[in-house]
Amino acid sequence: MLKQPNLKYRAFAPVALRDRTWPDAQLTSAPIWLSTDLRDGNQALIEPMDAERKLRMFEMLVKIGFKEIEVGFPSASQTDFDFVRLLIERDLIPEDVTIQVLTQARQPLIARTFEALVGARRAIVHLYNACAPVMRKVVLGLDEEQIVELAVTHTRMIRDMADARPGTEWGFEYSPEMFSGTELAFSKRVVDAVTAAWGATPERKVIINLPATVEHSTPNIFADMIEWMHRHIERRDGVVLSVHPHNDRGTGTAAGEFALMAGADRIEGCLFGSGERTGNVDLVNIALNLYTQGVSPQLDFSDIDEVRRCAEHCTQLPVHPRHPYAGDLVYTSFSGSHQDAIKKAFAARKADEIWNMPYLPIDPKDLGRSYDAVIRVNSQSGKGGIAYLLETEYGVELPRRLQIEFSQVVQQVMDDSGKEQSAADIWAIFAREYGVGDAQPPLHLSFSESEAGVVSLRADADLGQRRLAVEGEGAGPIDAFIQGLNAQLATTVRVLDYHEHAIGSGADAKAVAYLELRIGDALTLFGVGIDANIVSASLKAISSGLRRAAQRGQLEFAAGAVPCPTN
Amino acid sequence: MLKQPNLKYRAFAPVALRDRTWPDAQLTSAPIWLSTDLRDGNQALIEPMDAERKLRMFEMLVKIGFKEIEVGFPSASQTDFDFVRLLIERDLIPEDVTIQVLTQARQPLIARTFEALVGARRAIVHLYNACAPVMRKVVLGLDEEQIVELAVTHTRMIRDMADARPGTEWGFEYSPEMFSGTELAFSKRVVDAVTAAWGATPERKVIINLPATVEHSTPNIFADMIEWMHRHIERRDGVVLSVHPHNDRGTGTAAGEFALMAGADRIEGCLFGSGERTGNVDLVNIALNLYTQGVSPQLDFSDIDEVRRCAEHCTQLPVHPRHPYAGDLVYTSFSGSHQDAIKKAFAARKADEIWNMPYLPIDPKDLGRSYDAVIRVNSQSGKGGIAYLLETEYGVELPRRLQIEFSQVVQQVMDDSGKEQSAADIWAIFAREYGVGDAQPPLHLSFSESEAGVVSLRADADLGQRRLAVEGEGAGPIDAFIQGLNAQLATTVRVLDYHEHAIGSGADAKAVAYLELRIGDALTLFGVGIDANIVSASLKAISSGLRRAAQRGQLEFAAGAVPCPTN
Repeated sequence: MLKQPNLKYRAFAPVALRDRTWPDAQLTSAPIWLSTDLRDGNQALIEPMDAERKLRMFEMLVKIGFKEIEVGFPSASQTDFDFVRLLIERDLIPEDVTIQVLTQARQPLIARTFEALVGARRAIVHLYNACAPVMRKVVLGLDEEQIVELAVTHTRMIRDMADARPGTEWGFEYSPEMFSGTELAFSKRVVDAVTAAWGATPERKVIINLPATVEHSTPNIFADMIEWMHRHIERRDGVVLSVHPHNDRGTGTAAGEFALMAGADRIEGCLFGSGERTGNVDLVNIALNLYTQGVSPQLDFSDIDEVRRCAEHCTQLPVHPRHPYAGDLVYTSFSGSHQDAIKKAFAARKADEIWNMPYLPIDPKDLGRSYDAVIRVNSQSGKGGIAYLLETEYGVELPRRLQIEFSQVVQQVMDDSGKEQSAADIWAIFAREYGVGDAQPPLHLSFSESEAGVVSLRADADLGQRRLAVEGEGAGPIDAFIQGLNAQLATTVRVLDYHEHAIGSGADAKAVAYLELRIGDALTLFGVGIDANIVSASLKAISSGLRRAAQRGQLEFAAGAVPCPTN
Repeated sequence: MLKQPNLKYRAFAPVALRDRTWPDAQLTSAPIWLSTDLRDGNQALIEPMDAERKLRMFEMLVKIGFKEIEVGFPSASQTDFDFVRLLIERDLIPEDVTIQVLTQARQPLIARTFEALVGARRAIVHLYNACAPVMRKVVLGLDEEQIVELAVTHTRMIRDMADARPGTEWGFEYSPEMFSGTELAFSKRVVDAVTAAWGATPERKVIINLPATVEHSTPNIFADMIEWMHRHIERRDGVVLSVHPHNDRGTGTAAGEFALMAGADRIEGCLFGSGERTGNVDLVNIALNLYTQGVSPQLDFSDIDEVRRCAEHCTQLPVHPRHPYAGDLVYTSFSGSHQDAIKKAFAARKADEIWNMPYLPIDPKDLGRSYDAVIRVNSQSGKGGIAYLLETEYGVELPRRLQIEFSQVVQQVMDDSGKEQSAADIWAIFAREYGVGDAQPPLHLSFSESEAGVVSLRADADLGQRRLAVEGEGAGPIDAFIQGLNAQLATTVRVLDYHEHAIGSGADAKAVAYLELRIGDALTLFGVGIDANIVSASLKAISSGLRRAAQRGQLEFAAGAVPCPTN
């Protein structure tokens, strides 16, 4: 049994704020958004983004509509420095977009930060230092006075460096790090000292960013903390109040929403919750929650799959199938009674009516997803479901692009039949489409390899209407077979990709080969072959692909094609 | 730009509850937990659990400490019916565990439900019917009066059937479906009618379960709704007030916690948030949030990886790397300053002190995770990170078991060197371990296949200290090579698994083969081979594995082993 935690953990102290107003607040406009995908998100990746990925992410963020984008930590990372230079020197930052960069509170790092920003039209310098008691006592060894001094000194340093560089329109952001784990009174003391040092006024605002560096408490307590700060800090009209929630307790989205209800003007986070540990708050989630309440987030997620593909490419982390709004399964209804209710409600719905569909909090069309995706079960669960069934029931592991190709075949069959397909049904469709289930004539395969590594091969190719006796030479048997085939075809065939693996084991083991072929200039398709012999499986896969091309009328034979003796 | 939603969506109406008390409440004890992994979770899987998986999940839930487990919807599914019978007839339900089953409000289904439960020591019959306006008007075509009548009639029916079967201790749960989308006054009316029909008293309680069937609003509004019901329903002392949150807005965990703060006694959900669309609330998350506040959840997650493996096996869906408490990356610190702070705080921490570590809201040890996992970067990010680097940088797609084998090799190197490894470093370790980077002597490969499909093959095997001239026959080249090798070895070699795929394309394309071998009785390892020829790659992979076995002193040669002519 789990050890009782009573001795080791204690509850987070609540805030004495009985007259809180946020539980009665409603969000009626979009906040200022700051994406930190390229900074906080990037620093927590197994393999941080290279320049190509960074640029792709930046362009996607601009396309979505972010006007403030934290693009790196240039004084800590040469890659980040170079990326900031690239954005500025190639003039890649749109007129209405402001970049932001992070720096620690140390003179050489701040100087280096300004170096990175030379020539920027507008930029926000983001200063942080740790304020929480655990950091003061254990990590830094500084008392409260010294922490305030540290923040004030470096705020003045940034103010002076900014004043000395009038070519750029400078913004300033200050984060009392680990705000969520710091005494409120001390956070207020540091923040007030910083806004005074900056000389914050409504004309010369400072962004005060309050991070839940680690999420320690239920989100109502974070909301109370933000409302307390909102009501108690000095120069409030000279402050843009920002929050930066993380998600350690799985309540980052709620914390973000409540913080905005409690008085924050601005929120920092990442697409789909990228970032250290459990991630930063998911800005897609917050934005689309607003959207479903009739408030435009001023961010464009009308093709959410494209945004998702970009994020997955850049972070190399998946979006979970049940991720709000974006996951593969979130517009899927598996339950018959849900399907029935959705069907009836769609039928009853009039155009331009308020959205009020059972089991669908948002119209999937608004995000570029489809209604089809809602009702169907197996075809809808898509290539993942189909591939999963074939793998668990039949041991075949379709390469990803073959999954996509084959799911269209299944979709067609389901559209025709109008019913769900079992694993056995799907296997039958697969076997028929790729011709792997049929009893096939022997290949009459032989080959040898010369000392120089040249393979000479002969084998029969079963191309449907015609069977050819193929002879060729190449670097390996696939290459030799393709070269031999090309001598007999008027259409050029190339191998684009190849996968092969065992199914079964021991005496019954067979190999299944998946060959992706380019037939002529325009047609790309897969062939599949199964055989106890890995070479025969590969050659059968090539023939399978060519048969499928021939069925589409896309394969022409040369004059000198040699039929098999048995033809 | 995203279309303005203003015409299509509207904000959820707030609850008039200005004197709410939940924002000041703190959770000080565990709620009653109900796992619906086997019902709501199961019905939303691409491939629902079979009997083996159901049983494994049930046993895991019992082991964790759930005392109430919803095991199915027996009147809707024969598989569920059979599973309930199996649990009862094989006496698999512990003394202190109560099973629960769902039923719709129809006489034949209720009768069938009682049939499924014959012989149970204790059971909860869970009745639901839709109450929300969209369901009344569009889907069911019933008015409020008729909905109340439907609920009352079937509550009485269950009461009568239960009274007629005194051998079982009966519990009763009622869910006004889509509570989250229903007028509060009407929910109260239906619930009061049901508790009266059941004759609820403190001695004969009824479970009233209020589902956020779809999460429509910020979780403070759900909390207000629960507090309103808690304060307004009749016979409150005869009611166990339960909630059933979903996660459409990404705030299900907050909604669940607030509902408990607002007066609910019981919560329904799934492990890691399984369930329709975005899933049910994640009970692991709620339980461990309590734990970190010094409250024992009375559930055991001291080996969270085992729980996760079980859930992933049963649902065939992954737990995301950033999932709170359970994800692969949540105890990982990629940032140097985070790593430094954690290191200092660990050094300063005294045993039995209150847990107060920067960046770590829970001690990973409490969940069977490790401190090592916190500081290291690449070795810690584990096989996933290693496999990711090799795939993106070098195009090799290691099979899963090879990932595990190779990550141990990398871990060893990192432990020795004490530093992070780049992609190039990891590739060098891989090439050295499996001998794929070396210039290798030619294989002198030749083979032919008889009409009957028997392959005759000869090739050289480079086994490190010795090189053998191998001749064999078999169903394919791998089989033939293995048979030829076994004739020359005193240790038996078998192929357990085989994967092969292309790297590169066009003239530069090569094949990489991964062969999992059993050497003798006890040793299982992988060999890897790369060659332009798919057969040569496979044979090299076998030799690679045998060389690795020989290095471990686990390969013995037969007296008649034939060296290569060039030896």
